[in-house]
Amino acid sequence: MAQRHPDPTPGAVTGEALAEHLRAQATEFLRALRLHREGGPGADLDGAVRALRRSARRISGSLHTFRPLLDAGWAESVRPELAWVSGTLAQEQAYAARLERLLLALHRLSGTPVLPAQAPGLGGPASERGKVAVGAAKAGALLERQLTLARTRAHSAALRALAGSRFHAVADTVALLAGEVPLTPAAAGADLRPLAAAAEERLAAAVTALPLVRAGHPYNAEALVHGLSPDPSPHPQDAPWHQVRLLLRLHRYAREVLHGDDLTDVRLTAAGQALDRHRDASEAATAAAQAARTPRIAPATAYALGVLHADQRHEVEAARYAFQRSWGRQTVGTS
Amino acid sequence: MAQRHPDPTPGAVTGEALAEHLRAQATEFLRALRLHREGGPGADLDGAVRALRRSARRISGSLHTFRPLLDAGWAESVRPELAWVSGTLAQEQAYAARLERLLLALHRLSGTPVLPAQAPGLGGPASERGKVAVGAAKAGALLERQLTLARTRAHSAALRALAGSRFHAVADTVALLAGEVPLTPAAAGADLRPLAAAAEERLAAAVTALPLVRAGHPYNAEALVHGLSPDPSPHPQDAPWHQVRLLLRLHRYAREVLHGDDLTDVRLTAAGQALDRHRDASEAATAAAQAARTPRIAPATAYALGVLHADQRHEVEAARYAFQRSWGRQTVGTS
Repeated sequence: MAQRHPDPTPGAVTGEALAEHLRAQATEFLRALRLHREGGPGADLDGAVRALRRSARRISGSLHTFRPLLDAGWAESVRPELAWVSGTLAQEQAYAARLERLLLALHRLSGTPVLPAQAPGLGGPASERGKVAVGAAKAGALLERQLTLARTRAHSAALRALAGSRFHAVADTVALLAGEVPLTPAAAGADLRPLAAAAEERLAAAVTALPLVRAGHPYNAEALVHGLSPDPSPHPQDAPWHQVRLLLRLHRYAREVLHGDDLTDVRLTAAGQALDRHRDASEAATAAAQAARTPRIAPATAYALGVLHADQRHEVEAARYAFQRSWGRQTVGTS
Repeated sequence: MAQRHPDPTPGAVTGEALAEHLRAQATEFLRALRLHREGGPGADLDGAVRALRRSARRISGSLHTFRPLLDAGWAESVRPELAWVSGTLAQEQAYAARLERLLLALHRLSGTPVLPAQAPGLGGPASERGKVAVGAAKAGALLERQLTLARTRAHSAALRALAGSRFHAVADTVALLAGEVPLTPAAAGADLRPLAAAAEERLAAAVTALPLVRAGHPYNAEALVHGLSPDPSPHPQDAPWHQVRLLLRLHRYAREVLHGDDLTDVRLTAAGQALDRHRDASEAATAAAQAARTPRIAPATAYALGVLHADQRHEVEAARYAFQRSWGRQTVGTS
């Protein structure tokens, strides 16, 4: 049994804890894969995919944070493959969640459920006020069509990937990892804390570069700036926040290696949830803007998509505010 | 010279101070009217109209708040006429300000100045990304056309009103008021403070009825709720805020009667500005939504108007937040 320290300022946690963590995550990965392959009626395939992604992300994160303690060539070659697995398997669920978020927002904005079943009557002679409701319904139907198609494609791509040789190679690597972790000779007795602290420092540095003062002033109208700009990617302002989201995740995973699952920091969780919401709203806003570029849509549909886009950009701004609030109460430092 | 009390808890201020205030405002009204009629090159006609409205509002407000001290039949007959003057003269400036607000917002949203001069090239073969910029430019041109037309009509209506018999009757009444104020027999020695306090109580009661707790939580997404609803007036939620704006103005005018102009409460000013912003953004959002119902507009134009509408509804929400913040620091009570 490796060392586990519920106390956040423990003595040294060594490479052996890292090896145990990697073996445990690899075992989780293989268990999820078996669950998915066995399938059968009533099998929770979505849950199996989520578990696969969960362990792939954690293995990949540890390979990054604790790289100096691992066989360098091996770690360098495995990480992009795990990222590919995790990314490929994430798409289907992401499209489903994006559609749900957008339909819920349309529902909130229109006061009526916006489901494809609500879309008929589109051809009828609508009064001017009726057109607004029709616009919301048509926007919902359009998003449903586009995102369901994307979801279906992502589903097929994930199935193809899981059946392919590239994935089999990853699974073989993970199976080996479940048995033996390629630590460097010095790693077993090495202290993990400096590497975990370095991950925390990278996070802290990235947070420092965020416009947190501005984000802390509500209604700063920052997220929607240039929302109608001709720039094809009008929101480069989102990128540093997405980057912090990834660094926060790496920091959280490093904490798991050092302290186990049982030391969850509710403030870190809140900050992470705010950044997830930021990412989701950002992508939903982009999907609404893209849908508005569909040729030959009715002006009422385009109008509803414009309102929806702006609504999601304000969600982006709200998420930044929420992050700033939770981060203000953080004690994360570089020590 | 009537009593003036820079101290907010003064001794009695009597009806004579009210009479002096009304005479002074009536004199201001007549001076502004003369300025407007003389006209000539370089004359500040807009300034004259503003001064006319300013004194009309103050006379009307005092007639309301201190009604028991004034000849009842006279006050009842004059107030609606003053409201008509103030309302009729306000329209031109309101349309101009609304257009400016919307064009500034489009500029902020598109990153480029949105002026009619930017609208050419509309017929050219635009790429998908170009359409967004074209959408903003076309939306700006459409709003410019519609609001300039409305402004021109309001200008003509104001000129017609100023030349008509109804206005002449008001001017005659105000001219009489500048000489003699029709106080009731008991009014000259009566204390104004209970009536001013009643105005403050009406304000406090109306504020209490506002959803201030919700408004104090930023990004509550309240202002845009039902923004795509088929309801022709989807924002009845704005009405109580507009009502508080009017009651705040009456309270401010009553303070002017009691203490003169020199006792301005910066917090009251901030609250009033937030409510002005609330009203302006609410009406700008409505104008954007109305423009989107123009027949045969391009989808890109409708999309830009949808973004603009949502942007202004978030301004509404921001204004409520600002009001809540300034009001939280208020010491206004019923004492």
